[in-house]
Amino acid sequence: MQIIKRVKDVQDISRWFRCEGKFIGFVPTMGALHEGHLSLVRRSKEENDRTIVSIFVNPTQFGPNEDLQKYPRDIEGDLSKLSSLQVDTVFIPDNEEMYPDGFSTSIDIGGIGKVLCGALRPGHFNAVAAVIAKLLNISMPHRMYLGQKDFQQTVVIKKLVRDLNYDMNIIVSPTVREHDGLAMSSRNVYLSGEERKASLILYKALKLGEEIIMSNGLDDISAVKKEMEALIRSEPLAKIEYVKVVDPYNLEPVQRVIFAAVICIAVKIGNIRLIDNIIIEKS
Amino acid sequence: MQIIKRVKDVQDISRWFRCEGKFIGFVPTMGALHEGHLSLVRRSKEENDRTIVSIFVNPTQFGPNEDLQKYPRDIEGDLSKLSSLQVDTVFIPDNEEMYPDGFSTSIDIGGIGKVLCGALRPGHFNAVAAVIAKLLNISMPHRMYLGQKDFQQTVVIKKLVRDLNYDMNIIVSPTVREHDGLAMSSRNVYLSGEERKASLILYKALKLGEEIIMSNGLDDISAVKKEMEALIRSEPLAKIEYVKVVDPYNLEPVQRVIFAAVICIAVKIGNIRLIDNIIIEKS
Repeated sequence: MQIIKRVKDVQDISRWFRCEGKFIGFVPTMGALHEGHLSLVRRSKEENDRTIVSIFVNPTQFGPNEDLQKYPRDIEGDLSKLSSLQVDTVFIPDNEEMYPDGFSTSIDIGGIGKVLCGALRPGHFNAVAAVIAKLLNISMPHRMYLGQKDFQQTVVIKKLVRDLNYDMNIIVSPTVREHDGLAMSSRNVYLSGEERKASLILYKALKLGEEIIMSNGLDDISAVKKEMEALIRSEPLAKIEYVKVVDPYNLEPVQRVIFAAVICIAVKIGNIRLIDNIIIEKS
Repeated sequence: MQIIKRVKDVQDISRWFRCEGKFIGFVPTMGALHEGHLSLVRRSKEENDRTIVSIFVNPTQFGPNEDLQKYPRDIEGDLSKLSSLQVDTVFIPDNEEMYPDGFSTSIDIGGIGKVLCGALRPGHFNAVAAVIAKLLNISMPHRMYLGQKDFQQTVVIKKLVRDLNYDMNIIVSPTVREHDGLAMSSRNVYLSGEERKASLILYKALKLGEEIIMSNGLDDISAVKKEMEALIRSEPLAKIEYVKVVDPYNLEPVQRVIFAAVICIAVKIGNIRLIDNIIIEKS
């Protein structure tokens, strides 16, 4: 497994893979790897000749009062996991390599970056778009693998790739959950024992929403949201940031679910902000 | 020579060139090709195995009161010129292919896009950056060829490529001039006979500025600019938009020329806006 710190070196490797006619899979991460990330890596290994994983805690996508400083980091553990999955190349740049003096370019992806989490984290998805544009130009993959847990992020990145004509495919893999339903997230390590129990309320609320919509008992989305919100409020440690039912393509709120929708929620458990979602498909 | 209208087809061709180990040169144009464009194409042919030329009058980089509608177009003449130079691939998309419904991504390159022409044409260089990002992802070149005549554009595109880590080189070729010094530009066809004569004042002013700076007679840039402005004002049809002496890397105004600077000017001749520049190197 090659561990690379320089942009130029990854580009040389990627060029070489392509010259050899190899298909390249790419998994962008912020490290502190859990089973969710590893499921993406395994899939990339299955579907491509070469797999590149990046580990970079992108400072520009954190707001001034967010958790950049204490975001979990475990490079040694990460490398050991990736090595045992026989990843070909790991790209671990430092901030100076990604954002050298004078860096000044930003990418605005439009409205879909300004709703849901984007409304609460101004500039977050523009920063995500810019770092992904860079990582795509660095790793030059044929396929990029993303987790469904960050649903809005997958929509934003799909839009970036489509609008700027990146010649590659995006594969979104299902959210990997703990045995009790909590979506895996690097931030779960922040949760105290009590908060860990309380965090289950996210998945319970999503399943409740799904059940109501699928049963057709309530055709009125605002009523579905009310029931979900009431359930979340029954958990004393939980504080709702949003509960939304949106169109999976443009993230606009839906009034009724005809074919498909996504229930997206963001809830604070104590000081820890968690997000989760569930895709509803009526057939 | 292949004439291609679809993004996907150019990407297939470019992928194939790369698979074959061929180096790709790319020349982006808005058509109405003149000897300036053709010098870039010839250089690309010399330095690469395959040359792709794009012809696309990018609507997003024109302001509401600018000349998008009457911008000169001559597809047949252009194709005939490119064919005689044995270009491999010409990409001629329509607006719908480049900006399909729902397109919403913009790229902001920072301060260097907001001075000189950028101050007079708000949003122009953001639109240039976005269309070039797209064209780079479509043509996937190893080298891109630009003309020095649009000096600020070359600086903006170099910044885009550096900030977003595009894995390619930019080659800027010297401005090609008419026998009397007028910089070649597709917009020169707008000039009436009288305006054509008056337009010489741009090159004369640049040469005057160069002469004063190189002679070291005036170490004070504001005095150099005054002399240039006085010369331009002596031409009744000319109206100065700006006369600036700037750093070639960050486009900031310089007070004195130590090693290198660029004199950039924009002048209206009647209703026709012309730009030109000259690079000063002291050694």
